[in-house]
Amino acid sequence: MLEELKKRVFEQNLALVKNGLVVLTWGNVSARDGETGCIVIKPSGVPYDTMREGDMVVVDEKGNTVEGNYRPSSDLPTHLYLYKQYPTLGGIVHTHSSYATAFAQSGRAIPAYGTTHADAFYGSVPCARALTNEEIDEAYEWNTGKVIAEAVSDIEAIPAMLVKNHGVFTWGKSPEKAVENAVTLEEVAKMALLTERLNPSTPEIDQHLLDKHYFRKHGKNAYYGQK
Amino acid sequence: MLEELKKRVFEQNLALVKNGLVVLTWGNVSARDGETGCIVIKPSGVPYDTMREGDMVVVDEKGNTVEGNYRPSSDLPTHLYLYKQYPTLGGIVHTHSSYATAFAQSGRAIPAYGTTHADAFYGSVPCARALTNEEIDEAYEWNTGKVIAEAVSDIEAIPAMLVKNHGVFTWGKSPEKAVENAVTLEEVAKMALLTERLNPSTPEIDQHLLDKHYFRKHGKNAYYGQK
Amino acid sequence: MLEELKKRVFEQNLALVKNGLVVLTWGNVSARDGETGCIVIKPSGVPYDTMREGDMVVVDEKGNTVEGNYRPSSDLPTHLYLYKQYPTLGGIVHTHSSYATAFAQSGRAIPAYGTTHADAFYGSVPCARALTNEEIDEAYEWNTGKVIAEAVSDIEAIPAMLVKNHGVFTWGKSPEKAVENAVTLEEVAKMALLTERLNPSTPEIDQHLLDKHYFRKHGKNAYYGQK
Amino acid sequence: MLEELKKRVFEQNLALVKNGLVVLTWGNVSARDGETGCIVIKPSGVPYDTMREGDMVVVDEKGNTVEGNYRPSSDLPTHLYLYKQYPTLGGIVHTHSSYATAFAQSGRAIPAYGTTHADAFYGSVPCARALTNEEIDEAYEWNTGKVIAEAVSDIEAIPAMLVKNHGVFTWGKSPEKAVENAVTLEEVAKMALLTERLNPSTPEIDQHLLDKHYFRKHGKNAYYGQK
Repeated sequence: MLEELKKRVFEQNLALVKNGLVVLTWGNVSARDGETGCIVIKPSGVPYDTMREGDMVVVDEKGNTVEGNYRPSSDLPTHLYLYKQYPTLGGIVHTHSSYATAFAQSGRAIPAYGTTHADAFYGSVPCARALTNEEIDEAYEWNTGKVIAEAVSDIEAIPAMLVKNHGVFTWGKSPEKAVENAVTLEEVAKMALLTERLNPSTPEIDQHLLDKHYFRKHGKNAYYGQK
Repeated sequence: MLEELKKRVFEQNLALVKNGLVVLTWGNVSARDGETGCIVIKPSGVPYDTMREGDMVVVDEKGNTVEGNYRPSSDLPTHLYLYKQYPTLGGIVHTHSSYATAFAQSGRAIPAYGTTHADAFYGSVPCARALTNEEIDEAYEWNTGKVIAEAVSDIEAIPAMLVKNHGVFTWGKSPEKAVENAVTLEEVAKMALLTERLNPSTPEIDQHLLDKHYFRKHGKNAYYGQK
Repeated sequence: MLEELKKRVFEQNLALVKNGLVVLTWGNVSARDGETGCIVIKPSGVPYDTMREGDMVVVDEKGNTVEGNYRPSSDLPTHLYLYKQYPTLGGIVHTHSSYATAFAQSGRAIPAYGTTHADAFYGSVPCARALTNEEIDEAYEWNTGKVIAEAVSDIEAIPAMLVKNHGVFTWGKSPEKAVENAVTLEEVAKMALLTERLNPSTPEIDQHLLDKHYFRKHGKNAYYGQK
Repeated sequence: MLEELKKRVFEQNLALVKNGLVVLTWGNVSARDGETGCIVIKPSGVPYDTMREGDMVVVDEKGNTVEGNYRPSSDLPTHLYLYKQYPTLGGIVHTHSSYATAFAQSGRAIPAYGTTHADAFYGSVPCARALTNEEIDEAYEWNTGKVIAEAVSDIEAIPAMLVKNHGVFTWGKSPEKAVENAVTLEEVAKMALLTERLNPSTPEIDQHLLDKHYFRKHGKNAYYGQK
C-alpha cells in the first residue's frame, strides 16, 4: 500500500545524505497520507546504502505498524505527536545537521540575520525547552513532540524547531518541502554562526525587509517561482 | 533564438552548483546579447536537477519576455538595472554563498588581505547600504540594483558587491567571467574570515603589492594567462 | 588465511577515506580474529588508491607477521596493546581526523554537549596524558597503548580516546563498529567546537538525558534499531 | 621530449584539484628532469577541465621555452630560483589553499601543534618576509623565490614556506612528494587554527615528540612505510 508515498519518503531520506545533513543512520523523514491518515517513515537504524523503497514502514495514527518488515524509526512518536497536533502537515524531518545542532546544543535560537533566512522562516528559529526528568522517563519521544508544540507560535510561518541538546525538526505540506526546510535551516545556521564571527553585535534583519522576503515567497501576494 | 547564449547561461547556472555556491534553487546567472540587447536568465524557482537549456528565459531590455515557458528569476529587475547602467557588462551572477553572505549579513566589506583577492578585485569589496522602507515597497529588486550602483566606484576594477543582509552580485564581460568572480569572491571571503581568526588586527594588503597582482592580470601590461 | 576478515578490514580502511576522516596514507583499521587471535591490519604507508584486499597484513598476538607481503602499520603495537588488555575488542581504528585531532592537540577532552554524543559515548571523550620521554624512547607505539589504557574508565561505555598532540583511537566489537565510532567522534568534535563558538559557557548535557540516549541504544533495554 | 615527466606533472596538477587545494586556474606544479636540468610546468591560466598532458611546458634552466604551445605559469621564475638554489629539489608546488593562505595573510608561521605536523615538517612552517617595493617592481616572481630562500633554514627538514599576503610553496624530491607536502600543509594549517579556537594558549609540541615522529618517517632510522 501507499507505494508512491513510500517511494517519495525513501527518496527524501536519501536527499538528507545527498545534502550533507546526516551521516551513518542518523536522521529520518516521514510523510502523512492525506486519505488514510497513515504515516510512512524510515525504518530504525537501517544504513542508507542498503535501504530500499520497500523498507519504509507504514503505521496508523496511533503508531501501529500497518505494513513493513522493520521497526519504524525510534523517533516515530515525535512525528505522531506533531501530525496529530497540526492537521496541515504532510511531511516531517529530523536531523542532527552540524551547525543547526550546535545552536540546539548551545540552547540558542537561530537569529534571522538575512534574506536567506527570511525566504523560508518568518523570524528566528526557536529552541524548545529541555524536557523534565519526568517527561524523559515517561514517554521521551512523544514528549519531545509536546515541547516542540509548546514552542511553536505559527506552524506554517516558522516550519522548524531546535530541540535543546538534541537536534532539529522541520516540516511542511509534503516530505519534499520538509527536506527543503531542513537544507535551508542548516545553511542559515552556518551563515548565522559566521556572521557572529565577523561582527558579534550584528542586529537581526529589519522587520520591513523580513516581511518583504517572506511574503515574496509565501501567501497570496507571492511572486517567486512559477504559478 | 539566442540558442548558443541560452546554452552558456544554462551551463553557468549549473557551474554555481558545481562550485558549491548555491543550494536548492538559490542563485541565478544572466547574460546580455550584444546585438539585440536581450537578456537571457534562469527561470524562477526551477530546480537545478531538472532544468534544461530550453528553460532559460529571454527578455528584452525592459524585462518583457521575448521567449520562454517560465517566469524569469524574480531578481531580474536587479540584473536589468545593472545592464542598463553599465553598457560593458555581458554577464551577472547572484548568489547567497555562505562566507560572502556572512559578510553581507554583518554589513562589512570584504577586506583585501592578500593576492588571491588582488588578482580579481582592485580593493576591498564594498557592502551596499540597506534599502529604505520606501525603496523596498516601491520596486524592491529594481532598487537593489540602484543601491548597488550607488556603491560602485569602478564597475570593472571591483566586479562584485555585497548587498546588506542579503547576498552577493558579481559581474563581468561574459557570464563565464561573472561566475569566475563569484567563485573567487566566496573563496576570498572565507580566507578573510579565517585570517581575522588568526590575527584580528591583520592590516590590508600593501597598495604596491595590490597593484602588482591586479595589473599582472588586468590591463595593457597584463602577463598572466595566454595571449 | 582469514580472507573474509581481510576483505572487511580493507573495506573499513576505505570507509575512512569515504567518510573524510583521512587523507594521503594516514589512519588505519585493524580487526581481531576471534578464533586464532590473529590481527589483520593495513600495511604501512600504502596509498588507498592502489591498495587491495590481499595487501592486508596478518600478524599473531605478538605482532609477528603470519601472512602478507608488506610491513604492517607502524602503529601496530598500539593496536596489539589494546587487544591484549581488552579481550572483547574486535576492531580498532586510528585517525588524525581534523576536529577530533584539534581537541587532542589542545589537550582537551571532548565535552558531551548533546544527544549525538550521548548516542555513542557515555560521557566526555578523554584525552590521554602525554608520554614521558622515556616512554617515547623505549617503545613509543606500545606505550601509546599503555597511556590510552590508563585513561580508559570503561572500554565499552566510551569506545574512543584522544592521544595528546597526536590523534584519535576508537574501537568496538568489530572493525565496522570501530569505524562507526570514528565517524561519530569526528562529528561530535566538530559540533562541540561550534557549540563553544556560539556560547563559550555551554554546560554539558544533563545526566538524565545522557542516560536516556545512551541506554536507548546500548544495553538490555535498548530499543533503537532492529532486533 | 620528457613525455613521462609531462604526464606526471599533468597528473599532479590535477591532484591539486582532487585534494581541494585549488579552484579555477590557481596553483601550479613543476618538476625538474635530473638529466637535462629542464623544468616541466603547467601552462599559465589554462582551465584544469580541458588541460591535457601535452599542454605542459618544457623550459630550460633560464626559463627559455624548449617545447610547448603555451606560455608557462607566470610563477615560473619563483620555481627557477628555487631549483637553482637547491639542487636536490625534483618538484615544486604553489597553491592558495584556504587555511594555509589565511596564515600567510595574517603573516604568521604555522605552529607545530601535533604529530600530524611533525610527520612532515620538522618545526613550525615559517612565513617569508614581504618583498620590498623595489623587489616587486624589479622582478617580482624571481624575488619571491629569493625571499623564500632567505627564510629557509633546512630545505629538506621543512619542505614548505608561506609567502606573506600571498600563498604557499611546497617542494620535494619529486612532484608527487611536493604535492603530498601541499596536502599535509593545508591539513595541519586547518588543525592549527581549530586548535587555537579550542585553547588559544596551546603550547607547541614537545621537542622530544617532534623528533620521534619526524625521524620515524625521515632519515636513516625511519621505520614508517615500506622498505
